[in-house]
Amino acid sequence: MTKSVLTYLEKNRDPLIEKLNAFLSIPSVSTNSIHKEDVKKAANFVADYLNEIGFDQVEIQQTKGHPLVYAEYNGAGKQAPTALFYGHYDVQPADPLELWDSEPFQPEVRDGRLYARGASDDKGQVFMHMAVFEAYMKTEGKLPINVKVCIEGEEEIGSENLYEILETKKQQFEADFAIISDSGMVADGQPTILYGLKGFTGLEFTVKGPNRDLHSGMYGGAVRNPIISLSHLLHSLKNEEEQVTVEGFYDGVEDITEQERRFIADVPGEDYQKVTGITETVSEKGYTAKEHTMARPTLEVNGVYGGYQGEGTKTIIPSSATAKLTCRLVPGQDPNHIQQLVIDHLQKHVPSGVTLEMKREPLSAKAYKVDPNHPLIEKAAKSYSRAFGKETVYVRMGGSIPVVEWIESIYNIPIVLLGFGTPEDKLHSPNESFLLDNFNKGMETLVYYWEEVKNLK
Amino acid sequence: MTKSVLTYLEKNRDPLIEKLNAFLSIPSVSTNSIHKEDVKKAANFVADYLNEIGFDQVEIQQTKGHPLVYAEYNGAGKQAPTALFYGHYDVQPADPLELWDSEPFQPEVRDGRLYARGASDDKGQVFMHMAVFEAYMKTEGKLPINVKVCIEGEEEIGSENLYEILETKKQQFEADFAIISDSGMVADGQPTILYGLKGFTGLEFTVKGPNRDLHSGMYGGAVRNPIISLSHLLHSLKNEEEQVTVEGFYDGVEDITEQERRFIADVPGEDYQKVTGITETVSEKGYTAKEHTMARPTLEVNGVYGGYQGEGTKTIIPSSATAKLTCRLVPGQDPNHIQQLVIDHLQKHVPSGVTLEMKREPLSAKAYKVDPNHPLIEKAAKSYSRAFGKETVYVRMGGSIPVVEWIESIYNIPIVLLGFGTPEDKLHSPNESFLLDNFNKGMETLVYYWEEVKNLK
Repeated sequence: MTKSVLTYLEKNRDPLIEKLNAFLSIPSVSTNSIHKEDVKKAANFVADYLNEIGFDQVEIQQTKGHPLVYAEYNGAGKQAPTALFYGHYDVQPADPLELWDSEPFQPEVRDGRLYARGASDDKGQVFMHMAVFEAYMKTEGKLPINVKVCIEGEEEIGSENLYEILETKKQQFEADFAIISDSGMVADGQPTILYGLKGFTGLEFTVKGPNRDLHSGMYGGAVRNPIISLSHLLHSLKNEEEQVTVEGFYDGVEDITEQERRFIADVPGEDYQKVTGITETVSEKGYTAKEHTMARPTLEVNGVYGGYQGEGTKTIIPSSATAKLTCRLVPGQDPNHIQQLVIDHLQKHVPSGVTLEMKREPLSAKAYKVDPNHPLIEKAAKSYSRAFGKETVYVRMGGSIPVVEWIESIYNIPIVLLGFGTPEDKLHSPNESFLLDNFNKGMETLVYYWEEVKNLK
Repeated sequence: MTKSVLTYLEKNRDPLIEKLNAFLSIPSVSTNSIHKEDVKKAANFVADYLNEIGFDQVEIQQTKGHPLVYAEYNGAGKQAPTALFYGHYDVQPADPLELWDSEPFQPEVRDGRLYARGASDDKGQVFMHMAVFEAYMKTEGKLPINVKVCIEGEEEIGSENLYEILETKKQQFEADFAIISDSGMVADGQPTILYGLKGFTGLEFTVKGPNRDLHSGMYGGAVRNPIISLSHLLHSLKNEEEQVTVEGFYDGVEDITEQERRFIADVPGEDYQKVTGITETVSEKGYTAKEHTMARPTLEVNGVYGGYQGEGTKTIIPSSATAKLTCRLVPGQDPNHIQQLVIDHLQKHVPSGVTLEMKREPLSAKAYKVDPNHPLIEKAAKSYSRAFGKETVYVRMGGSIPVVEWIESIYNIPIVLLGFGTPEDKLHSPNESFLLDNFNKGMETLVYYWEEVKNLK
């Protein structure tokens, strides 16, 4: 039975990629309101495809923000389990545009990779699942499992409306387990199951000084400089040993066990210097870079601006300076509490003569961990290994997927995180791409997996 | 003889303002190359006016950058002194545009003030001199003194080509003294002679981290954040007591004498909080804000940028972060030496894992001080007092006019700094304006002054 499905996928590689390219060509950037219509277009693309495959009850559910695509397939019968398949069709902004080698929304294949914003995160991976469903319907006339589809358009802006939907429409979205492909392998060709994710909280703050930009000669010496004040604040958040110096930040954090340290050490490591071009890695004192990225909390400043940024010199004391920051959290840290600790810290450290304006990032997520010995997880690992011909490793990662925490807390079902990205995909960066080999072997993995779990109920 | 000139100026107030408005309407922003043609237009305006008045040898001298307008008047005869009249027709950028109440390049009179970029700095003040020359020619048929005119288009970008011109064309520009109106009064209606200016040096530097923006979840914990690293560097330059913490920065600086402290205390002070809207003034430990702005060196960060600056959140570690800084210097500090000290300091303090790229601001200026008892200065003070009906005060100021230092070093002649701006002019800021009362009384001052000095030779 598996063979016909795999043959269909192999024979239809070109038309499938062509179809994926149409999906990737839509600039569905959710954070920027000028792309509102594009985001709608991407939702329609997903809904149209699901209809075409033969899903029932395909709905574009409106939210206060961007729409969510819902669909159901119940043709596998009551003996088969029901999977909640989650993904997102929105993407990160493409800027800085000048650093792309090809247009971010005109997909292009180079050296076995498909280049486009969203190729890996998450349109490419969402598309793989739909293509597998198409293959089953075209060859077997049915799917081996029942499926509830939930593809949202707000993941890159913190899934602002998803929690409410999942909570209020509990019966509609209920399933035996969830499956999500929005992550990656630790190395090319290395099957990887994610068993832990970090939480997330964020904040934007502005240091306000004079009511306008001032002449630095006339006022320098009488007025506190907002950029220097901002620097004092940012400096106070983290030391050169990469320890967050916000009081209480590490309270309640479980330290990594010796077993987990060995476990992390066994995961093939990414060559950070080669991949990112940095001169040396840095990490929290007492932890390796791998331990820090996977299992220790972080605080990063994501953007900063203030004063004159154009060509040449402008001799001013600027009226304000702004920074955007986010924290990645681990089990034991409550996102709202950490956000408040950062706010308290900034208020305590703001220099005299300037004032502080805060803008809390409204959405947040708690960190997540699942038992790697659950049969649904073990079978995923087995299918993954079979398609890629290599033993699967289990890792925790620094990324945040709020929906994982929400599905767990609302539905209390196992969540299978089966990702097919690679470290070279450049998620959120210029020249994002997806390895075509993973696209193909990933679909193979999914076919094996549906055959493994169809009788699990 | 004076009366007919003053009457002419009074009767022609409206047409003169109309003509000044045409000058102010040209967006001659020298720092931004998209305004190159506008800068040329402003040079043509000045040259046309000088021709119209009856100057000889009106030349638009091309430079590697923006042109300089030169003209001569020798009709006062050999017994009269020759003044070198310096000014600039270029202006600062108008941004942020949204903070202007009227268009920066569409002059508008409100409540006795003329609002436009350059109204005070320096087009308005340059125009006053030309209007006075016009009045003399139209009424007396001649000027009381000989004049060499030097109006440049690069003052706001550090007068990049002026030094070479002044040095190589020494004979052409030679004069008995120089007169410059590119400064202001310490308070409305308070005649003010500037006897000291600060020097200037600048630097732009970029902290470079990864070769692209990185996903903060995947790389946070392994990669040094360039914005936080930049903050460590900026934090290290100045402490909360407003002392510059660059090693050697204060070496050779003469401290303010007790006499000068009393002198500064006697100058009517600006209400910094009222004028700038700050919550409190801050100044170098041991000095008042007035002392610090007038007579102590400063270091300011003029602009900063890095990472994501758009709407919403982008969870990245940015690839780089940049800051622009400038120092205002006092006698005893060499600009190139100070620039090098800052560079050495930054290189010494840059955190591991990131690299530093420096861009030296190519132009600089030494601080300047003149003897306030020189007859040319005393007569300026007398004329000023006569026009405004109040005793003149003598001050040092934080602004830098590199040309002052250059004229002194190349020509070794007295320089009369006779400025008519006010503290409310908002130089370099949105809503720059010029007090029309000062425009009129300033021209009166100039007429008295020419009568005072015409026999001084």
